[in-house]
Amino acid sequence: MSKTVYLDYAATTPILPEVLEAMTNVLANDYGNPSSIHSFGRKSKSLVEDARKTIANSIQASVAEVFFTSGATESFHTVLYSCIRDLGINTVITTKIEHHCTLHTVEQAKAEKGINLIYLETNNDGSISFDVLENTLKAAGPNSLFCTMHINNELGTKIDYSNVGRICQENNVLFYLDCAQSFGKYPIDVNQNYVAFLSASAHKLFGPKGTGLLYINNDNLIKAQILGGAQERNIRAGTENVHGMVGFAKATELCLAEMEERTQKLKEIKSYCLAQLKQNVSDISFNGPTDLKDAANHILSVSFPENEKSELLMFNLDIAGICASSGSACASGIENDSHVLETIGHDPNRKTIRFSFSHFTTKEEIDYLVSVVKKIY
Amino acid sequence: MSKTVYLDYAATTPILPEVLEAMTNVLANDYGNPSSIHSFGRKSKSLVEDARKTIANSIQASVAEVFFTSGATESFHTVLYSCIRDLGINTVITTKIEHHCTLHTVEQAKAEKGINLIYLETNNDGSISFDVLENTLKAAGPNSLFCTMHINNELGTKIDYSNVGRICQENNVLFYLDCAQSFGKYPIDVNQNYVAFLSASAHKLFGPKGTGLLYINNDNLIKAQILGGAQERNIRAGTENVHGMVGFAKATELCLAEMEERTQKLKEIKSYCLAQLKQNVSDISFNGPTDLKDAANHILSVSFPENEKSELLMFNLDIAGICASSGSACASGIENDSHVLETIGHDPNRKTIRFSFSHFTTKEEIDYLVSVVKKIY
Repeated sequence: MSKTVYLDYAATTPILPEVLEAMTNVLANDYGNPSSIHSFGRKSKSLVEDARKTIANSIQASVAEVFFTSGATESFHTVLYSCIRDLGINTVITTKIEHHCTLHTVEQAKAEKGINLIYLETNNDGSISFDVLENTLKAAGPNSLFCTMHINNELGTKIDYSNVGRICQENNVLFYLDCAQSFGKYPIDVNQNYVAFLSASAHKLFGPKGTGLLYINNDNLIKAQILGGAQERNIRAGTENVHGMVGFAKATELCLAEMEERTQKLKEIKSYCLAQLKQNVSDISFNGPTDLKDAANHILSVSFPENEKSELLMFNLDIAGICASSGSACASGIENDSHVLETIGHDPNRKTIRFSFSHFTTKEEIDYLVSVVKKIY
Repeated sequence: MSKTVYLDYAATTPILPEVLEAMTNVLANDYGNPSSIHSFGRKSKSLVEDARKTIANSIQASVAEVFFTSGATESFHTVLYSCIRDLGINTVITTKIEHHCTLHTVEQAKAEKGINLIYLETNNDGSISFDVLENTLKAAGPNSLFCTMHINNELGTKIDYSNVGRICQENNVLFYLDCAQSFGKYPIDVNQNYVAFLSASAHKLFGPKGTGLLYINNDNLIKAQILGGAQERNIRAGTENVHGMVGFAKATELCLAEMEERTQKLKEIKSYCLAQLKQNVSDISFNGPTDLKDAANHILSVSFPENEKSELLMFNLDIAGICASSGSACASGIENDSHVLETIGHDPNRKTIRFSFSHFTTKEEIDYLVSVVKKIY
C-alpha cells in the first residue's frame, strides 16, 4: 500500500473517535425533533442545549449568545446582512487577505446594499499595525464593522485580537472575529475582549462538517437572515443538526482538555519542519511572521524556488501521497498565486505550498515530506 | 420500562441502519475537504458527486440542477431572494397554509424588497382549485413565483403538482414546489412537470438532520445567497457536509427501492387508525381531504370534541408515551390553533392532533393510541 501523509489540517480534520462515538449515539438513538414538545423532542432539545453550554463556556460567552449554523460561511453572511439591516451598519472595514467567504460577501453587500467598503492595509507578513487600524477606524466613523481572521488561513499570521478588540471598542466600531483557524487551538475570551461577533466551523477542530458557530454579543440584537421556525431563538430557522452540534461540543471539550499538550506537539512539529526544509532545500523561504509567536502553530506557508520542477510541485507531492494545499482549500484548483499571496507581494514565480499540522503529525511524516521534496528538486 | 409510541414521523424520522452505516463510514474514514485537490479531497468530492447523482436521478433531474443545502428552510430562502435579485421576480403567490419557512420568508421579502404578495385562496380541506389558481396567476402577471407544498405538513393535503405546474407554465409563472413531506414518498418528476425549484430535507425521509436539497431548473440561472468558496457550483458556499449528503442519498435510494411496499403499509395503517378512532371516540372528525387519494398516506389530522379533557390531550398523550404533534414541529408549543387550522376555518374549541406514520408503524401501536385516547375521554 502506498504511503499517505496528511498535511492539510487547516483545510479540514479527521473526526476524533470520541466525537464519532458521541455523534453515532445521537444518530442511532436520539432522532426527536428538538422543536417537538413530546419526550423524543425534549431529549433532542436537551442535547442541543448541552452542546450550546459547552461551546459557550469554552469562550466565556453566555448560552444566550451562542447560535449554531451550518458553518462559518453562513455565520458571516448572517452577521453582515443583519448588521446592515438591524444595526444600521453602513461601513465595513476588512483586509484583502481574508477568506473568500468574507471578501465575496462584503463585495456583494457593497453592490447590493451600497455599504462603504474599506480595505485595511496589512503588512507583508499578514499582520495589522495598530496605528494603521486606529487611523482607519477613526476615519470610518460610527456605524462601522471591522471583520478579520484571528489566524490567517494561508499565512498562519495570528492577530492580537485582544488589542484589536480594544481599538474597535475605543472607536465605537463593532468587531467580527473569524475564528475558523483558531477556535479550539487558542484560548478565546469574548467576554473580556470586546468581540461583537465570532464564527467557527466544527470540522476544523476534529468535529463534523456542516456545523458552525455564530457568537453574537448580547449588546447587538440582530435578527435572522434565514427565517422559518423559531429554532436558535429565532436567529436561525431550520430543524437543528443535533448530531452535528453534539459532535461540535465534544470536539470543543477535547480541544480544551488537551490544548496545552496539542500546542506543545504542534510547536515542535512546526519548528522541526521549518528547520528540516531550510536545511534540505536551498533557496526556500517562508511566508507570514518570522517570529513564530505571531504565527499559528499549525500552519507553515512555504515558498519554493522558481524552477521547472516547481510547476508540478503540488502534483508530485500528491503522487507521493502528501496532502497539502496551494492556498485555502476553498480556492484550490487555482494555479496562480492566491489573493492573499498577491496582496502581501509574494513573488509569483515562486511556488507556495501551505503545510498544516495537527498533534497527530509525526517527525517521521515530516522526514518523508522532506525526502520527497528533496527528490523533486 | 414505559411504552413509547412515536407517531410524529412528519416532524422527523429515525435514521435507517443502512443510512447510519453509510454516514459512519464517511465520518470515520473520508475526512478530506471536497475542495482539496489531493487524494483525500478527491475521494470526498466523488462521494459528494455520487450523492448528487442519486438525488438527481430520483427526480429525473440532471446532476447540474441539484444542490445541497443545510435544509429545506435554507433552500427556500435562497430561491426567494435570488429570484427577486437575479430573475426580476416582483410578485410572489402562495397560500396561507404553508410552513412558516415560506410564510415568514415571503413576508420578510415583502417588507425588505417590496415584492407584491398574493395569497391564493385555498379550500377548507387545504386543496387548491385550478380555476382559482389560473385566475390568480393571470392577474399576477409575469415576473411571478408561485410557492406551495406538495403535501401540506399539517393537513396532509396533497396537490396535483403536475397540473399546478402546467398552469404555472401556461401563465409564465415560476413554480416552487416544497417537497419536505413528499420527497421519497411519492414519485416526483421535475423534468415533465414544469417545476422550476424544489426543496426537501433529508431528516423527513429517514436521513440525517442538517442536509437539504435545492433543485434549480436549468432555465433559471439564479446565483448564491451565501457566498464564499466555489462549492456547489457557486450556488452555496461552505465546506460540504459530506456525511450528510451521503446519508441523504442512501435514504433516497431506500425510499425508491421500497416505495411501493412502504406506501402499501402506510395506506393500511392510516385507514386502520382512522377507522379505529371513528369507532371508539364519539364526535371525532378529521381535517384535510375526505377522499384519501387527495391526502398523504402518512398524515392524519384529527379534531377531538370540546370538553375539559381535550385541553390536556397533548399532555396526557405524552404522559402515556405517545409522541404526536399539535401542528408542525416548528410551531410546537403554541397552544392555540395553528395558522393552518385558522385558515381552513377549524373550530378553535376543538383540539387538533396531527398523527403521522411510517412503514414501521404497527396496528398494535394504533391500538395502544386508541386505548389511551378512550381512557382520556
